[in-house]
Amino acid sequence: MNLKQLAAQKALEFVESDMVLGIGSGSTTACFVDLLGEKIASGRLRNVVGIPTSEVVARQACGLGIPLGALGEHPAIDLAVDGADEVDAQLDLIKGLGRALLREKVVEVHARRFVVIVDESKLVPRLGTKGALPVEIIKFEATAHIRWLGSLGCRAELWLEEDGAPIVTDNGNYLARCWFEDGIPDAYQLAQQLAYRPGIVEHGLFLGMASQVIVAGEEGIRILEARP
Amino acid sequence: MNLKQLAAQKALEFVESDMVLGIGSGSTTACFVDLLGEKIASGRLRNVVGIPTSEVVARQACGLGIPLGALGEHPAIDLAVDGADEVDAQLDLIKGLGRALLREKVVEVHARRFVVIVDESKLVPRLGTKGALPVEIIKFEATAHIRWLGSLGCRAELWLEEDGAPIVTDNGNYLARCWFEDGIPDAYQLAQQLAYRPGIVEHGLFLGMASQVIVAGEEGIRILEARP
Repeated sequence: MNLKQLAAQKALEFVESDMVLGIGSGSTTACFVDLLGEKIASGRLRNVVGIPTSEVVARQACGLGIPLGALGEHPAIDLAVDGADEVDAQLDLIKGLGRALLREKVVEVHARRFVVIVDESKLVPRLGTKGALPVEIIKFEATAHIRWLGSLGCRAELWLEEDGAPIVTDNGNYLARCWFEDGIPDAYQLAQQLAYRPGIVEHGLFLGMASQVIVAGEEGIRILEARP
Repeated sequence: MNLKQLAAQKALEFVESDMVLGIGSGSTTACFVDLLGEKIASGRLRNVVGIPTSEVVARQACGLGIPLGALGEHPAIDLAVDGADEVDAQLDLIKGLGRALLREKVVEVHARRFVVIVDESKLVPRLGTKGALPVEIIKFEATAHIRWLGSLGCRAELWLEEDGAPIVTDNGNYLARCWFEDGIPDAYQLAQQLAYRPGIVEHGLFLGMASQVIVAGEEGIRILEARP
């Protein structure tokens, strides 16, 4: 069992029958969804409803026979499980390198408990040190949004597919990637600047949202708890 | 000449040759665009470039021979001219009942000077007293966004076309309308709540953005100046 599977297996222990579950996107969450599907198929979990955060994970869950719903009928999510690209000591996150950050944030903000599953390579002293911060922007005047992002102390670029075309999200928007040379100095201040800017739809900073982070490492599982 | 034309004519006095112009959307701005087209065609204005805020006004301007550009090539706008649905004493605005609020805000935030043209019926003691606040939301889980908007002290509804289908903006999103029974108690606080919420793309509160408001009334033109 690799580290992603180890973290996913631990998260599965938190799932109980009759729960409404937010289901994240990405490779670690895909392990979780596989295990969840097995447990439902075996009859050890009953009456679970999953709220998916991307078309990709919806197809995976559907194929495994996991019942799916929407926030319209299920406004309160008991538990959301998702991966992350970076986790700092305050349990603030960067997410979205799986391209699904907007739907993930929409679903996870409705969760009573949000459990993040990662391998230990995702732990960072400061957000933005491992990779880029993804930002979802509208197509209209995209060049102007990228230029503005570049004024925030990072190198910003439109995120392209391998064939050179801009990536288009499930919501019909583009994605930018912002590279901070020494990490993000103040993630809360940056989140505020991004929140207020027209043309910026959403960003990959998930601040104050995670309840717990399950970290799988070579020496086993650790669970980091958010401070109340 | 009606009041809308009167206000538009006054705004035209501010336009000079060689300017980059942000061009708003809606019926009052349409009057401005007509007059602008005439002045360009007559040769009294040269080398003006318009940055349009909706497909509708782009078509109108194009038909009148007004040269159009984008923020990509013209990052700084000398002057933006647009209408508004409501204007309060601080020159804070509600815009977007013409359905173009997101592109308007994107363009107008790049303007050195933003002139608003209205007839006097748009002046209000408090924003939200005349009509609804429009809010652009993503299609995904729209019911959940409407429900959340309804928790902010207003009656929120999905904005529908006459045939009952949801209105879809130029950006592929839906629009909600929020009705506040006694107006919006604190527009800045509301703007903050909306800015931070995932799934809310943009809203019709334009706060601290207008440089001047040209008000056309039965007794003529008044110009309201923003406090520095």
